[in-house]
Amino acid sequence: MSSEEEIRGRIEDALERTLGDLAVGTRLRRAMEHALLGGGKRIRPLLCVEACRCVGAPAQRAIRAGVAIEMVHAFSLVHDDLPAMDDDDLRRGMPTVHVAFDEATAILAGDALLNGAYRVLCGPDAGPGTSLIEELSEATARMIEGQMLDITGGARTIEDVRRVHELKTGSLMRCACRMGAICGGADEETIEQLGSFGLHLGLLFQATDDLIDAEQAEETAGKATGKDAALGRPTLVGLLGVDGTRDEVVRLVGVCRDLLDGLDGGRLLSLCERIASRTR
Amino acid sequence: MSSEEEIRGRIEDALERTLGDLAVGTRLRRAMEHALLGGGKRIRPLLCVEACRCVGAPAQRAIRAGVAIEMVHAFSLVHDDLPAMDDDDLRRGMPTVHVAFDEATAILAGDALLNGAYRVLCGPDAGPGTSLIEELSEATARMIEGQMLDITGGARTIEDVRRVHELKTGSLMRCACRMGAICGGADEETIEQLGSFGLHLGLLFQATDDLIDAEQAEETAGKATGKDAALGRPTLVGLLGVDGTRDEVVRLVGVCRDLLDGLDGGRLLSLCERIASRTR
Repeated sequence: MSSEEEIRGRIEDALERTLGDLAVGTRLRRAMEHALLGGGKRIRPLLCVEACRCVGAPAQRAIRAGVAIEMVHAFSLVHDDLPAMDDDDLRRGMPTVHVAFDEATAILAGDALLNGAYRVLCGPDAGPGTSLIEELSEATARMIEGQMLDITGGARTIEDVRRVHELKTGSLMRCACRMGAICGGADEETIEQLGSFGLHLGLLFQATDDLIDAEQAEETAGKATGKDAALGRPTLVGLLGVDGTRDEVVRLVGVCRDLLDGLDGGRLLSLCERIASRTR
Repeated sequence: MSSEEEIRGRIEDALERTLGDLAVGTRLRRAMEHALLGGGKRIRPLLCVEACRCVGAPAQRAIRAGVAIEMVHAFSLVHDDLPAMDDDDLRRGMPTVHVAFDEATAILAGDALLNGAYRVLCGPDAGPGTSLIEELSEATARMIEGQMLDITGGARTIEDVRRVHELKTGSLMRCACRMGAICGGADEETIEQLGSFGLHLGLLFQATDDLIDAEQAEETAGKATGKDAALGRPTLVGLLGVDGTRDEVVRLVGVCRDLLDGLDGGRLLSLCERIASRTR
């Protein structure tokens, strides 16, 4: 059985290889590397690979799917950080792509990452045909809707905020788990169960994000904090308070645990618990 | 045999249906409609459908592929028009998406169009599996590289300008023809031949674009003109003069005609001749 460290290593190798056919040293490639290889948590590819493993299939089968999801995630961060959107200068303790390069390069690098995700899912050893592409494109469409809803400030109530979290973060984490399960040859019911786990993990991730935002200084979090509140965007903490949001985190961990019932999901549960207690 | 008008009608219907699962009236959907249904020339889907027909297959088989390519084309226009890129206010005689809506909406609408193109190529009746997705993603990657090269002003010589034209416009027109031929079940040699026709048609399109830019007033062209020259980007007209560029147009029409040799390509040739004499 591969350790998580080994799997992380394989994911990083595969991420680097995806840019392999773009001429080295060009501005576009450097911007994509900055966005994709700048040390993310790799939660989505890990989810994908672990969902595959927990239905009894080897990790290797889900690496490409995990890479594709991470590219979509990286694209979304690059575009969300743009001045016209969230206008963030800092991401993972580093300048965001439009700061390190320029806006035009950031727009194009994001486009190329999104497009590249679909290239990764093609080719002879790409796995189960167009079903993964369909999963990824539907989830990405929902994620984009979520970002639109978020920036137009449609969210007012707790239900609105949950809806934004579900679309912006839940969609892709749900998709990561579903794709992993599909790669592992799971039945429809198990794909659905793991997808629901991923969705709730996304809600959990956003709840902890709101807590970090409310409690942490910028330096510790590695990115701008307190921004949503300053923009007048309602957050879970704003609506439920810090204690109420902590209760929500505990509730969501319970939901996630229940959703792993009957599966060999020890690593997924451990990932869930690490997310619940994360400080950045 | 369907007339070109009938085929155009089917393409327009199919384009409208692609947005069908996005809630009507939302800002994101309206921006996508503005970009996609605002009366383009539909050259790429027509190329795709005619390439399919000219290898003896029914038009209907290539409609979805044509729609996917048109969505990628629409995405590229929305992003290229952004203030950080070409900063164009006018497109097809209408305000560009970021002017009619705002920058954030334009970025997201472009993202959603690119992503949506891949959704169109999935599903039970999507045709020949991942091969179309591979074609589209490779061509789109080259198109994005071309836009990057264009805005960083890498082009200096006539070869540089041709390279930008090849990447920015040739890639997707080549892809349109290749995808149509693939949908029609053509052999590899014919796919290659039609792809080369599409590539040269793209160069022809750009040559006439430079002529329009140099000669026409903004009102007639339906978009900003003289911009590349003003930005110091070399154009064919700048390098070859108006007469030299007209000679290049004639040469490219000849290349395109030769590439249709042995195929039932009357409609493709007629499309080529219309492009050669276009004034907007």
